[in-house]
Amino acid sequence: MACEKKRLAELAVLVQGELVGDPEVLINGVADFDSAVAGEITFVADLKRGARLNECKASAIIVPASVTEISGPAIRVRNPYLAVARIHALFVEDPFAATGIDVRAVVGNDCQIPAEVAISPLVYLGNRVRLGQRVTLHPGVVVYDDAVLGDDVVLYANVTIGHGCQIGNRVIIHSGAVIGSDGFGYATDGNGHHVKRPQVGVVQVDDDVEIGANTCIDRATFGKTWIKRGTKIDNLVQLGHNVVIGEDTLLVAQVGMAGSTTTGNNVVIGGQVGLGGHIHLGDRVMIAAKSGVHNNLESGAIVAGIPAIPHKTWLRSSAAYAKLPEMVRELRELKRKVGELASALKPGGDDSLGNKE
Amino acid sequence: MACEKKRLAELAVLVQGELVGDPEVLINGVADFDSAVAGEITFVADLKRGARLNECKASAIIVPASVTEISGPAIRVRNPYLAVARIHALFVEDPFAATGIDVRAVVGNDCQIPAEVAISPLVYLGNRVRLGQRVTLHPGVVVYDDAVLGDDVVLYANVTIGHGCQIGNRVIIHSGAVIGSDGFGYATDGNGHHVKRPQVGVVQVDDDVEIGANTCIDRATFGKTWIKRGTKIDNLVQLGHNVVIGEDTLLVAQVGMAGSTTTGNNVVIGGQVGLGGHIHLGDRVMIAAKSGVHNNLESGAIVAGIPAIPHKTWLRSSAAYAKLPEMVRELRELKRKVGELASALKPGGDDSLGNKE
Amino acid sequence: MACEKKRLAELAVLVQGELVGDPEVLINGVADFDSAVAGEITFVADLKRGARLNECKASAIIVPASVTEISGPAIRVRNPYLAVARIHALFVEDPFAATGIDVRAVVGNDCQIPAEVAISPLVYLGNRVRLGQRVTLHPGVVVYDDAVLGDDVVLYANVTIGHGCQIGNRVIIHSGAVIGSDGFGYATDGNGHHVKRPQVGVVQVDDDVEIGANTCIDRATFGKTWIKRGTKIDNLVQLGHNVVIGEDTLLVAQVGMAGSTTTGNNVVIGGQVGLGGHIHLGDRVMIAAKSGVHNNLESGAIVAGIPAIPHKTWLRSSAAYAKLPEMVRELRELKRKVGELASALKPGGDDSLGNKE
Repeated sequence: MACEKKRLAELAVLVQGELVGDPEVLINGVADFDSAVAGEITFVADLKRGARLNECKASAIIVPASVTEISGPAIRVRNPYLAVARIHALFVEDPFAATGIDVRAVVGNDCQIPAEVAISPLVYLGNRVRLGQRVTLHPGVVVYDDAVLGDDVVLYANVTIGHGCQIGNRVIIHSGAVIGSDGFGYATDGNGHHVKRPQVGVVQVDDDVEIGANTCIDRATFGKTWIKRGTKIDNLVQLGHNVVIGEDTLLVAQVGMAGSTTTGNNVVIGGQVGLGGHIHLGDRVMIAAKSGVHNNLESGAIVAGIPAIPHKTWLRSSAAYAKLPEMVRELRELKRKVGELASALKPGGDDSLGNKE
Repeated sequence: MACEKKRLAELAVLVQGELVGDPEVLINGVADFDSAVAGEITFVADLKRGARLNECKASAIIVPASVTEISGPAIRVRNPYLAVARIHALFVEDPFAATGIDVRAVVGNDCQIPAEVAISPLVYLGNRVRLGQRVTLHPGVVVYDDAVLGDDVVLYANVTIGHGCQIGNRVIIHSGAVIGSDGFGYATDGNGHHVKRPQVGVVQVDDDVEIGANTCIDRATFGKTWIKRGTKIDNLVQLGHNVVIGEDTLLVAQVGMAGSTTTGNNVVIGGQVGLGGHIHLGDRVMIAAKSGVHNNLESGAIVAGIPAIPHKTWLRSSAAYAKLPEMVRELRELKRKVGELASALKPGGDDSLGNKE
Repeated sequence: MACEKKRLAELAVLVQGELVGDPEVLINGVADFDSAVAGEITFVADLKRGARLNECKASAIIVPASVTEISGPAIRVRNPYLAVARIHALFVEDPFAATGIDVRAVVGNDCQIPAEVAISPLVYLGNRVRLGQRVTLHPGVVVYDDAVLGDDVVLYANVTIGHGCQIGNRVIIHSGAVIGSDGFGYATDGNGHHVKRPQVGVVQVDDDVEIGANTCIDRATFGKTWIKRGTKIDNLVQLGHNVVIGEDTLLVAQVGMAGSTTTGNNVVIGGQVGLGGHIHLGDRVMIAAKSGVHNNLESGAIVAGIPAIPHKTWLRSSAAYAKLPEMVRELRELKRKVGELASALKPGGDDSLGNKE
């Protein structure tokens, strides 16, 4: 099971933080600021909360390095969230427990399954499926023929892995996600009927990717749809055929990406963003929630809106949008005034000022 | 089974309506206006359809109280939809039929399951699961360890309930919904790698909530994600970790709500709306479909747009938006005219009118 | 199994194309331009790629009829995508292989199931389900009571078909899709509580429809929700109760359509589009991705935006939107200049120019 107690000094070393106060304090868990009790460590990520440090009942606290007015027990770190993530994992992540293959699971022919796995009842594995070490498959998981799963993969309930798809090491996929459904590809004949184009590629998911509940990733028409190392995908995201997502990228919930679009590394795409097909986003692009992107974006671009424009412009444009009715009125008023000025200049009431006569 | 026949007078009492015409008419079901036949009761919700009352083949009709030109058989009520909902339920809702636990279901250790349940084949219950009276679990349902379901809960096919989640009485959850997936929480280290933050909270769903197909509700990072009594959630909705939804609230399909956002009671959120994290919506807020909300909203606010602005303003702004090209032209024309007026006033052709010389 | 080799001349006939070069070339498969090897046929859909024809390693190539500078082996066709779809299917579509009903599937009472079916382990069929010839049901599929499936239907893993729903011939439904969940229908009582309206209709899906992964189609309140012949629906789409989708229509991923909305034939709806309830779209309507449609659209309309306006207008309006901050500045500047002009004309500095004195 996960570790039970740690000395505060050990935790400080783990997160490369600066220990403040008693190094011998024993910590047995992590909780949030308001509910932490004795024995637990908690954290403040911003200074506003730091102002209430004396209200905290935890035995120790993780604070930003900028918090100096603290006597401990505490750990000062550059990134409290990161430190909490690491310490918390220490207390809650149980080591893998091999339960083998439940007799109520269904396993096809010629599968390669190590002894150290945990395959639940009601799991279905097709033929020639290959599993890595310490794979955990929850009930209702369906893995089709010829799929390959790496070491330490966890598939939650009712996940589908399509035939031939390849899942890297330490990949976590949440309930109901579908990896390897057919891409949405048709050719339209002269009668307006849509003829299905065979989708014969696969999906490749690299190491340390996490995929949210009910997310769908289509297989490639040819070749592969590809999610690269370390990328995290939220729930209900849609990725079309032949999409390539770079490393360490974040796709927030309900993002939709059309076919053959590709991204660089460390991209962040906000919730409900839609991306057209066959475009490329450079490294470190950031797209605000609900935006619609139809064009390539250069590395480092920060955009918002439908269609997406530079985020700074969008802030001003959207502020102006709320004042459009006022602008309409002002414009009408100006036209009237200018007309009157023109009349005043040409008393005959000629409205044709400016016409090249 | 559901009731077979009711006298019209009884139905009028049930819905607190005013009986018009023969109280002894026997009703055996409900149908919509165009397809209702003898023996059935139907309804008109608005007066336009009321104009065709004579075309109706139903044995009785539910009409708004404002419809006076009717001789019956009929029931006049304040809210025809509400009356129809109650009468219809009377005819179609079968009482619970206990079938016990199918032998092809999988049940973990130390579960608490009353005799009066209906657990289908291919259901999976983890360890220490507690079920209320008259719970119905359809095939493919997965309930993880330590989850608690109240009385009269119905989970349709392939629903997932995460470990430790708590589901109240009379909750209905439609196929493929995922309750208790991990929240989307990471801390990013100095190399741009995203480190998973443990998500150790739960989801609590209170009494009389209904949740749509393939909707996802993430468990809290700490504490609970909380859906309060009477709230109805449509299909494909995404609720992030630590979201709190008030009572009697409606979330239409494909809404997405980021982490820690909370709402008051009787809120209505239109389809495909996106809400940022850590904001609060007051009671009775209404948000138009497809809006994007990034800020707190006061009770009673009615908003639309991305970013959301007061709905009345949005109606005018969006109308003006369609005329933006015209505004651009008008503005250009005005600039030209003003330039000419300035020249006319200062014949030297000086364009610098207005410069503080 | 699928065919192994075809003479190029045969393929040209199949796609009604013009053969260029050696008719005896043997083709054993299809690949994309960059990865095709000897024995395979590939294609170019646009002339830009055609410029690199000499780099291609395929044994033959499908080109648009407009490509004349080619010596073969090749097939010239009006629509390369269509030709590829047909030729590719020839090589990859295996004929149906009947495996019968796996003993680990669950089959209710009084079902009608032909001998020629392939029903996987862990499939659940309710009572009185009727299946056509050559139906393929993958693991985790749940078909409720009284549902009817036509010939050659394929349901992928964990698909749910609600009770009484009717699925036509050659329908393909991808993993996790839910057909026949309850519509989102409530009547609100005087206390603000939402009372569920029974949803007693069904979903009817006609021949040759394809439905994407995790898509949800609600059953009708009364009558039927209806997807007509040849329509293709992408992943994560939401269709409300009593929606009617015409023939040969394309709904791209994450579209949401509220209740009772109907479409004509050959409509194309882009990704993440939202449509209000009770509206009608005429034949051949096209809606740009992310649009929001609240009103009826005439046949042939091409629209974009929220709310949707003619696409041509939207292109100009959205371009102007990005320049709104500039317009605000220009308008302010114009006001100032006009004020100064007015002052210059009436040296008393009267700002009330234009008031009817």
